[in-house]
Amino acid sequence: MKCSQKMAQAQAARNSRLCVGIDPDINRMPAGLENTPADFERFVREIIAATADQACAFKFNLAFFERLGGAGLDILQRCAADVPRDIPTIADAKRGDIGNTAEAYAEAYLGAMDFDSITINAYMGRDAVMPFIKRPGKLAFVLAHTSNPGAADFQYWTQDGQKLYNEVVRRCREWSDEAEGECGFVVGATRAAVISEVRESAPGAPLLIPGVGTQGGDPAAVVAANGTEGICLVNVSRAIMYASSAGDYSTAAAAAARSFRESLN
Amino acid sequence: MKCSQKMAQAQAARNSRLCVGIDPDINRMPAGLENTPADFERFVREIIAATADQACAFKFNLAFFERLGGAGLDILQRCAADVPRDIPTIADAKRGDIGNTAEAYAEAYLGAMDFDSITINAYMGRDAVMPFIKRPGKLAFVLAHTSNPGAADFQYWTQDGQKLYNEVVRRCREWSDEAEGECGFVVGATRAAVISEVRESAPGAPLLIPGVGTQGGDPAAVVAANGTEGICLVNVSRAIMYASSAGDYSTAAAAAARSFRESLN
Repeated sequence: MKCSQKMAQAQAARNSRLCVGIDPDINRMPAGLENTPADFERFVREIIAATADQACAFKFNLAFFERLGGAGLDILQRCAADVPRDIPTIADAKRGDIGNTAEAYAEAYLGAMDFDSITINAYMGRDAVMPFIKRPGKLAFVLAHTSNPGAADFQYWTQDGQKLYNEVVRRCREWSDEAEGECGFVVGATRAAVISEVRESAPGAPLLIPGVGTQGGDPAAVVAANGTEGICLVNVSRAIMYASSAGDYSTAAAAAARSFRESLN
Repeated sequence: MKCSQKMAQAQAARNSRLCVGIDPDINRMPAGLENTPADFERFVREIIAATADQACAFKFNLAFFERLGGAGLDILQRCAADVPRDIPTIADAKRGDIGNTAEAYAEAYLGAMDFDSITINAYMGRDAVMPFIKRPGKLAFVLAHTSNPGAADFQYWTQDGQKLYNEVVRRCREWSDEAEGECGFVVGATRAAVISEVRESAPGAPLLIPGVGTQGGDPAAVVAANGTEGICLVNVSRAIMYASSAGDYSTAAAAAARSFRESLN
């Protein structure tokens, strides 16, 4: 099955566009949990269990696991395996490197750890992208226009009226067709006009849209900008994981996830 | 001590511009070693011990460690700690993400694992770069112009006569000054004219130059293009680690490292 098909099925089954982002900060544990690897893992697993009914995808932010060293990557692997099999997983890795190194990253996350998809950075060009998009049943979300304040610094660099992020979308579409693989794009929620623009130039590509919640993107505007044609996975991380810092964090996360899911329909 | 000062001292002490790249492929172990984590670690440690006399830096390619999961990150940490304390280490991570995530990556590799420096990708702009360059005693090598075939795909995107990689250098210099931190740049060995260009726009910045060896860059041309002013660390990975696939891999690596060091002087 194509990865985009798995995504479409998960969206239909749960009537959800909500991607739950797993960004667990070991220095910010809710009440009742210590800042130990064991409690960190427990926190993540409880959030997954509490929100799986509402989620069409889970995105794991690798930085917060890597900060724990080897133990962190082991926890990542166990937590990703904990996600119900019909819900697609995303390794939010933002990797990008020369061909043989990109192959090793693809093997690490799409192979050994068996994530369904991964976020990647296309700055290094074709050979940095190909190893991630050519794997059957897998998908790479390429960074196009991000949600952070620095997005405009380089992504708007303009040649012949074409902004860099548009060129990234155009070229990665070509490579994806060439590889008979699948790519999607990361487009921040904070500028709805850019979502429409990317959607227009990549009609069938899944869009991963972060920036709703703590970062301030508006759910209704995001969904309207995406239109009714392609898949959009709207990611919310901290506003769900940290919906409560008290002992009721998992019920609060479930309630927040339900509320975000509804606001995206 | 500033990181660039540590680099300059290591270069002077060993009369070397050679950065030994640690790209260990678990599917390509030399004779006498199995493709197990234990032998993988032994291989890396033997290469470090065999080449430390010739090296002014060690660069660890994280992909090849991450492919082993949690065990791989533990091995990475132990191997990096094995490098003699006066030789600077580089986490070749090519990370780049929004502010709080970039902080977590910086904490992982410059904090917990205590690498001296890290390679980063600036596509996401200022807040993706700052957490890595503001740490006292540490340095971030920002990808400018890379050595791979895909380098031209996006890095040459040109606005008002200025290529993207030039703009990356210009802006990161500003941010580094603003943070009173240190940044250097990754510039591939395969185009000497680009090295001269980056050196001119960033006179004092250390340059990390991959692409000599297996990728075909010419040592003498690279050093001439850098000139006599700033630090350049010329990286060779596979042509040293895999100088021999027989049981003499560590003596062959030592000989290859010596030969590359000499060709860079």
